[in-house]
Amino acid sequence: MQNRRTDRGSFFPVFWKMDNHYVLMDFHKTFTLQQAEDVHIYAEGRYNVKIDGQLQEGTPLIITIPAGTHKINVKVFSQGTVPAIFVQGKTIVSDTSWLLTYEDKEWIDETGKTSDISATKWVNAGSSNFNDPSSPPSQFKLAVQPQAPVSVIKKGDTSLIDFGKETFGYIQLHGIKGKGSINIIYGESKEEAMSDSEAITLDRLHFDKDVNTDSTLPLSKAFRYVKLETAPGFTVDSVCMLYEYVDIPDKGSFRCSDTLINKIYDVAKYTLHLNTREFFIDGIKRDRWVWSGDAYQSYLMNYYLMNDDETVKRTIYALRGKDPVTSHINTIMDYTFYWFLSIYDYYLYSGDTAFIKQNYPRMQTLMDFCLQRRNKDGLMEGLPGDWIFIDWAAGLSKQGEVSFEQMLFCRSLETIALCANINNDAKGAAAYTKLAKNVKKKLFAYYWNEQKKALVHSRINGVPTSNVTRYANMFGIFFHYFTPKQEQEIKDNVLLNDSVQKITTPYMRFYELEALCALGDQQHVLQEMRDYWGGMLQLGATSFWEEYDPSKQDTEHYAMYGRAFGKSLCHAWGASPVYLLGKYYLGVSPTSPGYATYTVQPSLGGLQWMEGKVPTPHGSIELHCDTKQIKIKATEGEGILHIKSRTVPKGNNIMIKTLGDNVYEMRLEPNINYTITYKAM
Amino acid sequence: MQNRRTDRGSFFPVFWKMDNHYVLMDFHKTFTLQQAEDVHIYAEGRYNVKIDGQLQEGTPLIITIPAGTHKINVKVFSQGTVPAIFVQGKTIVSDTSWLLTYEDKEWIDETGKTSDISATKWVNAGSSNFNDPSSPPSQFKLAVQPQAPVSVIKKGDTSLIDFGKETFGYIQLHGIKGKGSINIIYGESKEEAMSDSEAITLDRLHFDKDVNTDSTLPLSKAFRYVKLETAPGFTVDSVCMLYEYVDIPDKGSFRCSDTLINKIYDVAKYTLHLNTREFFIDGIKRDRWVWSGDAYQSYLMNYYLMNDDETVKRTIYALRGKDPVTSHINTIMDYTFYWFLSIYDYYLYSGDTAFIKQNYPRMQTLMDFCLQRRNKDGLMEGLPGDWIFIDWAAGLSKQGEVSFEQMLFCRSLETIALCANINNDAKGAAAYTKLAKNVKKKLFAYYWNEQKKALVHSRINGVPTSNVTRYANMFGIFFHYFTPKQEQEIKDNVLLNDSVQKITTPYMRFYELEALCALGDQQHVLQEMRDYWGGMLQLGATSFWEEYDPSKQDTEHYAMYGRAFGKSLCHAWGASPVYLLGKYYLGVSPTSPGYATYTVQPSLGGLQWMEGKVPTPHGSIELHCDTKQIKIKATEGEGILHIKSRTVPKGNNIMIKTLGDNVYEMRLEPNINYTITYKAM
Repeated sequence: MQNRRTDRGSFFPVFWKMDNHYVLMDFHKTFTLQQAEDVHIYAEGRYNVKIDGQLQEGTPLIITIPAGTHKINVKVFSQGTVPAIFVQGKTIVSDTSWLLTYEDKEWIDETGKTSDISATKWVNAGSSNFNDPSSPPSQFKLAVQPQAPVSVIKKGDTSLIDFGKETFGYIQLHGIKGKGSINIIYGESKEEAMSDSEAITLDRLHFDKDVNTDSTLPLSKAFRYVKLETAPGFTVDSVCMLYEYVDIPDKGSFRCSDTLINKIYDVAKYTLHLNTREFFIDGIKRDRWVWSGDAYQSYLMNYYLMNDDETVKRTIYALRGKDPVTSHINTIMDYTFYWFLSIYDYYLYSGDTAFIKQNYPRMQTLMDFCLQRRNKDGLMEGLPGDWIFIDWAAGLSKQGEVSFEQMLFCRSLETIALCANINNDAKGAAAYTKLAKNVKKKLFAYYWNEQKKALVHSRINGVPTSNVTRYANMFGIFFHYFTPKQEQEIKDNVLLNDSVQKITTPYMRFYELEALCALGDQQHVLQEMRDYWGGMLQLGATSFWEEYDPSKQDTEHYAMYGRAFGKSLCHAWGASPVYLLGKYYLGVSPTSPGYATYTVQPSLGGLQWMEGKVPTPHGSIELHCDTKQIKIKATEGEGILHIKSRTVPKGNNIMIKTLGDNVYEMRLEPNINYTITYKAM
Repeated sequence: MQNRRTDRGSFFPVFWKMDNHYVLMDFHKTFTLQQAEDVHIYAEGRYNVKIDGQLQEGTPLIITIPAGTHKINVKVFSQGTVPAIFVQGKTIVSDTSWLLTYEDKEWIDETGKTSDISATKWVNAGSSNFNDPSSPPSQFKLAVQPQAPVSVIKKGDTSLIDFGKETFGYIQLHGIKGKGSINIIYGESKEEAMSDSEAITLDRLHFDKDVNTDSTLPLSKAFRYVKLETAPGFTVDSVCMLYEYVDIPDKGSFRCSDTLINKIYDVAKYTLHLNTREFFIDGIKRDRWVWSGDAYQSYLMNYYLMNDDETVKRTIYALRGKDPVTSHINTIMDYTFYWFLSIYDYYLYSGDTAFIKQNYPRMQTLMDFCLQRRNKDGLMEGLPGDWIFIDWAAGLSKQGEVSFEQMLFCRSLETIALCANINNDAKGAAAYTKLAKNVKKKLFAYYWNEQKKALVHSRINGVPTSNVTRYANMFGIFFHYFTPKQEQEIKDNVLLNDSVQKITTPYMRFYELEALCALGDQQHVLQEMRDYWGGMLQLGATSFWEEYDPSKQDTEHYAMYGRAFGKSLCHAWGASPVYLLGKYYLGVSPTSPGYATYTVQPSLGGLQWMEGKVPTPHGSIELHCDTKQIKIKATEGEGILHIKSRTVPKGNNIMIKTLGDNVYEMRLEPNINYTITYKAM
């Protein structure tokens, strides 16, 4: 999937290491049968079968397992595709309870006796989409659906086809007749499709057909507009597309009294869906790659929309790859840290302990890589080959020890310490905690500027700069690293201070608005959403962009990276309202893994009403809230509802606790429809 | 290749980790052209092309490089086969001077400017057999040649076909007609081919042909005999085979006055050739795998026969695989150590410094793995998952700290210290040397038994056992770890002591006889060769075996691993006379890398005459020696000839130095035919 990016017809793969699968895998499981059964075996790859350690002659398609307790091993070699098995008997089936290894170490002695294999590391098999031998994993394809254009403007041998909104799929040409070439120029904007020389994606085809024929292009692409140029005398009856998508249902929702916010939510949702494919990718035009910083935001949005665990896990695995670590994830230091953060987040939202356990060794080796790259002060500073990304921002300094990187490094150490405890590695937990404390201490000792009342951007040669940027300051808010006094100082001196360099990507606006929400300023953030995301909609956006700087004019909006249409107009990180509205307006957050406990702190932010649903592992938390009434129902977990109200909230069967400062608390039990009357502040 | 072993029709792959290739590779080279030239590009895999960092549109088959200095990058993705390029212009061609990497780290900033990529590690490309786009590397196949059987005995529906000697290739069936099954049972012995239930390899085929047809079986196999069983009414006109081989010429030779020794040399040569394929493998019937201990001996034999560097390098690379190290090589502790030893040997025989440099980082990580597994005494003791192999020998103890493993560990540390110096890593060299000295000190302190006058086999729980085995003692001789007094004691108390457990594999007889040769007992060793290898010939061997115990009877010789025909009758380690005769009788050894200097110490060992050739990197050292005259000519290097003679040797243009004890020394200059008269002792 990482190899599907093209740039003007050229193959354009990633510039980091692509790990391949292990080509030789041994799968096994022990079964206890009441009676003998026949078991069908199918594998992707060449395989052999052992029953109770005895190699079966040939390549059995069916084996008979006698009654009693028996062990089945299937060993598969496959170079071009991932080794996979499909085993089906009456009770014996392949699933994630099978164990596998890439080195079974089954040697024999001179008498033929098999070695003790106790040192072999077995892990649980993955499992996905291999429920039928006729559709093996390597043939997996996303779902498609035909879609027709909304308008076609034909001038001579050129047609401009508009599909009405940003979309993704395979162009289909119907009724091709003639000999010659067809150029297809794709555009996320009309201007891009019309620009033969500057459009980012295109297909140049050659046909030699005397009879009418149809053709579906082999690579799906992102576009709203397509320009079709045919050689003279060449005809194409019509053009349509196969929309390609992942069929994951929405489990979360949001609606409110503000139609613009509803529209923003819908376009954000569509943007996230377009960028949720086999993995969470950055953007559908380019890069179509899995980037850790981008994916980190998609995970969070996902928890409030689809809540699909599988895509999260797949993406986390894909980003990490195999040992040894030779580079930061995606070569970016910050992206390594987001990867750590994503694991504990996933655990918190899903409660999936097994995933933490399977990943902990890879967390350790990645952290070892980071620890080995600390400078003499124990801080993370860019070494040759490290990309300090932070954000796309003109002139942003990446020199020296950047405070933002130390902030993420500290949080990563705290995260791995939590995971160490989950893995009963008390020694590791203590060591990581000690390291985290040390980095946190330095974060404040080195970067906090008492004049500026904020963290400065960096230290160069051991000397703090006086430059204040938003990055470390806003992360420190929702990481809860500051005192309440510092939080207020940062809000005034950084977040709401227009003289501090503004953020022009939805990527970092995500965190900027999250920080303001965490400080309780939902009203301000709602207006920011209306302005910023609403601003894109006003410019005709049908999906949210990689970058939006309101000060730019006309087609300037499409340019980036020194290219006229370099910008992605459908970028996952543009979809953050999905997350912000769920977490900080509906106000739902897990407080222990898998929503065993959670809090709800509804905040209308000036809306007359809002309603929606937040998915939990096995259900949802649904609420409706206006200025006078809150209705809420959860299907699992122990909840705490916090309400800000001018009066003491009331309702049937509820116990209200007064926390002071107009805040009231009540417990939420599963499967009860609560109706609370209150008076919004 | 490691997946071509079958066992009674079942796929039988290795039980260690099989690393895959890197799937995404960037190749580049900078060229300076006097005039523009067109360059054709072909790749195995999907690719793109950059000229001076500029991505070229589409997938160019031909590019034009202008005059001047220009950089060409070709980036290739290929999952199922190894990424490879073939580039051909007038002066621009693909070769090993191209550099490549699996992570080019070519990121851009917000203006589109490419990052500084200085931290990318580039290595030299490999190059082999890709000289024509129509025969890409993935399609590489060994040479074949049709061979007819020497006899066919047909009884009813069964034919026993004899190819006259051990061979390897693809069975061809001609004139197949009828419907039904054919069973092909392969045998290295007649008894194996006749044993449907015990033969190790077989093919079960099904045909449904009304007209005559021919069929070549897809997998090459080892056999002398083949039994063909056809279903009733089914006919096969004739059976022949395609002999499959590597077309590497012999550059070394040996002939002498003893016809049995000449026969042994020829059969050893044939045995080595059969087991020299894409890599040096263990045996052609089974396992057909690359085993480090087996390959180590093939390398040494190769230096005296084919002197093919490429097969040595390929095998060393294949054995090592990728980081991280998760297991000993082939899971065997001793086999890890042989791998270290093989690298310096290769350097000594070839002078290939580049190979040492490219491998040094992998030597370091493998040594780190070993060092992390030392016990509290700093010695190597088997941990769960470690196979302590040593040799196939009944009842051999693998418990505790085995002296043989410490001996190889010490030598490996000395070897990596030498390689550290070649890599200008003085710090590493000092550290490894210190470790080696420490292990050597313990080797003598812990294992030397003053009563037994030998090293004992092991220590268990810190207490030396009293058991003396040959292994550590014989290696210590040719590693020159002992004093002359100790050497003589070991010779008498171990090597020539029949009460010490005898060796029954040619594998360890290799080292046993090498030790005796190193002590100057060529006469005794020649008789051992006649008895041991001659003994196999007397039993009808046409290639040398995995194991030979003269005390066994009849078909007992074919059994091993608890299976009637478990033994390999064509095993590379059976071919050691090729090495012993070249190194200790012709007496030729390099004393500095690539035969820049060398010694020749001819030793007739009781032969009337001997003659032969030992290959050097760019030529050979050729000599003829009888009891009165030595003729010698080398084409390169500075040689030292040592002659044992009752009289002072004489000859034209030679300067004789008397070393005492009847030993004389003279210098050998290249391309001079020396004729020396002397009187053999």
